[in-house]
Amino acid sequence: MVPNLQSGMENVYVDTSAICYIDGKRGELYYRGYSIDELSRMSTYEEVAYLLWYGRLPRRSELREFRKSLSLERELQEEVYSIMELLPKSVNPMGALRTIVSYLGNLDGEPSVTVEDVYRKGVSVTAKIPTIVASLWNIKNGREPIRPRKDLSHAANFLYMLHGEKPSKDEERAMDVALILYAEHEINASAFAVMTVGSTLSDYYSALVAGIGALKGPLHGGAVEEALRQFMEIGSPERVEEWFWRKLERGERIMGAGHRVYKTYDPRALIFKEYARALGEPELYAVAEKLEELVESHLAKKGVHINVDYWAGIVFHALGIPPELYTTIFAMGRVAGWTAHLAEYLSHNRLIRPRLKYVGEIGRRYVPIEERG
Amino acid sequence: MVPNLQSGMENVYVDTSAICYIDGKRGELYYRGYSIDELSRMSTYEEVAYLLWYGRLPRRSELREFRKSLSLERELQEEVYSIMELLPKSVNPMGALRTIVSYLGNLDGEPSVTVEDVYRKGVSVTAKIPTIVASLWNIKNGREPIRPRKDLSHAANFLYMLHGEKPSKDEERAMDVALILYAEHEINASAFAVMTVGSTLSDYYSALVAGIGALKGPLHGGAVEEALRQFMEIGSPERVEEWFWRKLERGERIMGAGHRVYKTYDPRALIFKEYARALGEPELYAVAEKLEELVESHLAKKGVHINVDYWAGIVFHALGIPPELYTTIFAMGRVAGWTAHLAEYLSHNRLIRPRLKYVGEIGRRYVPIEERG
Repeated sequence: MVPNLQSGMENVYVDTSAICYIDGKRGELYYRGYSIDELSRMSTYEEVAYLLWYGRLPRRSELREFRKSLSLERELQEEVYSIMELLPKSVNPMGALRTIVSYLGNLDGEPSVTVEDVYRKGVSVTAKIPTIVASLWNIKNGREPIRPRKDLSHAANFLYMLHGEKPSKDEERAMDVALILYAEHEINASAFAVMTVGSTLSDYYSALVAGIGALKGPLHGGAVEEALRQFMEIGSPERVEEWFWRKLERGERIMGAGHRVYKTYDPRALIFKEYARALGEPELYAVAEKLEELVESHLAKKGVHINVDYWAGIVFHALGIPPELYTTIFAMGRVAGWTAHLAEYLSHNRLIRPRLKYVGEIGRRYVPIEERG
Repeated sequence: MVPNLQSGMENVYVDTSAICYIDGKRGELYYRGYSIDELSRMSTYEEVAYLLWYGRLPRRSELREFRKSLSLERELQEEVYSIMELLPKSVNPMGALRTIVSYLGNLDGEPSVTVEDVYRKGVSVTAKIPTIVASLWNIKNGREPIRPRKDLSHAANFLYMLHGEKPSKDEERAMDVALILYAEHEINASAFAVMTVGSTLSDYYSALVAGIGALKGPLHGGAVEEALRQFMEIGSPERVEEWFWRKLERGERIMGAGHRVYKTYDPRALIFKEYARALGEPELYAVAEKLEELVESHLAKKGVHINVDYWAGIVFHALGIPPELYTTIFAMGRVAGWTAHLAEYLSHNRLIRPRLKYVGEIGRRYVPIEERG
């Protein structure tokens, strides 16, 4: 046994924080002390980003200014469109987002990160990610990118750029709530990657790019797409039961179930479920509801419950967002949280440098190549 | 006090490992059990990369095959040159490397990482980084990139692409030793960023890009350039003493001194020093030697000693490598270690997900915007 060996860093506290509180046993989530239920009912993504960054809700004039600064930063430099044109048509959208955000850093000159410039760059990148994602999709499909509009909300503008038409009020609200639900979740692998890179005082873009790379992983951000695909694969509510037991027999995972921190129903999933019921395809919703029942009655005792990714895909599908983009939507929301954690950690920065416990030999003798067997 | 709070993760063991052993008290470093002294005297970068990846020294035929596979992967796809042309001329070379390696991932399709494909992709990226770095430099300076040669060693080919002529045997050896010394160093911020991103099963390129981003930081990889610049700023051995005491009075750091793990002279610095003495500009060497004496006699009691970055710049300067590229040389070596750690961690992967200790309020009431003060 190795003393102080922390597999997967489970339950290791890296720092103190005043950004996000998760009560994994009760299924509660707070951003800066405000419950996710209140925020998803009453707030907007722009207001939540402000809250995460500055620690309090904005006054009316502050919110107006903040929304304006975001809307003014939506447009991409022309060179960015040229780079997007050079990406292979088969490109993974998260891989493409990683490259483009890295390139935004190249255009910015990327000096060492300081607490002061995190939020300024945060506004720029938060504003641009929707433009990048929608443009990538349009370019991939042989269409001209649709330029952002300044007069729409963050959520509505994204759907506008993706589809070429303004969303309905209900669609805008569902998109806005999705971004709120994805905006922050303490220090998962992506936020931790952001902090680790940031702790070297590298630059904002390097830190963000690490977060995007981590979120791309199927163990982190990739599950929304797979959760939706499993509902589609099942196809109808009558087939759920057979499918579920076969999956369990094979020792395979149900996508959108289980979480390292929540040991009950994920509070974000409850909110996504409302929107899935209101907007989703009834057949898909029925399949998911039946499967949910089986998960909660048979896997709950093992601590496996419905998580945020479970219902999100049905909502995104209803909004006409292609499944390939689901993880980029996650990034579009989470950039607010990554930026908040980067700024908070930098305010009292210490280089993150853990250890590995060496268990190999020491002092092997170098044998010249002629003498090797 | 927060229980189990691990600032900067100092002395937290993340995993067991059989790759690298550092004895920080005695100033010893072993790759796979072989001391860095033996390896730097007798081995080559290609052999060291093989050793780090496969855990043993190669037989003659294995090394021949490995060198060949690296030499065949040096050339970049034509699109990569087009992307490099689109980077601003003022681009930070590490930022550029980050974007280009990310783009290599886009070309590769970047499926989820598996242990099996880490080494295959590792060969490709290890082979290409020197080509990227030399090409970036040539393009930045308005010259045509020089295409790689298959008949040269990894070290010689890089200097050839940078300068347009084959290096001398001494220059080749110094470059080779530099890459060996930078090849691996347990789990610093960059290797840890690679592992964190890899632990989501993202993809090889996402993990590498996180490592490059971390290494770019001045608290991690940026010190070689600054160490050389400080010797140049001092200018002559007579001015060292005054400069040193003024620096201390102001509470400023000596660049290339101090390390989280070594509490004595860094063994890699001893080896770099030999090459600095043999190849470096005598005046710069004399300045550095005088400053070293002051550091070791006045700062050693605080645990501050000469580290790997101190002498490296004088060697690189002698090899005609521009200071702006020094951190990319570090990356050129370290890719071997990053790849080894990624493969080792994936062989028993667990998602890296630590915690933050919440110290803020809980249950703040959402006040509608009209009612805010």
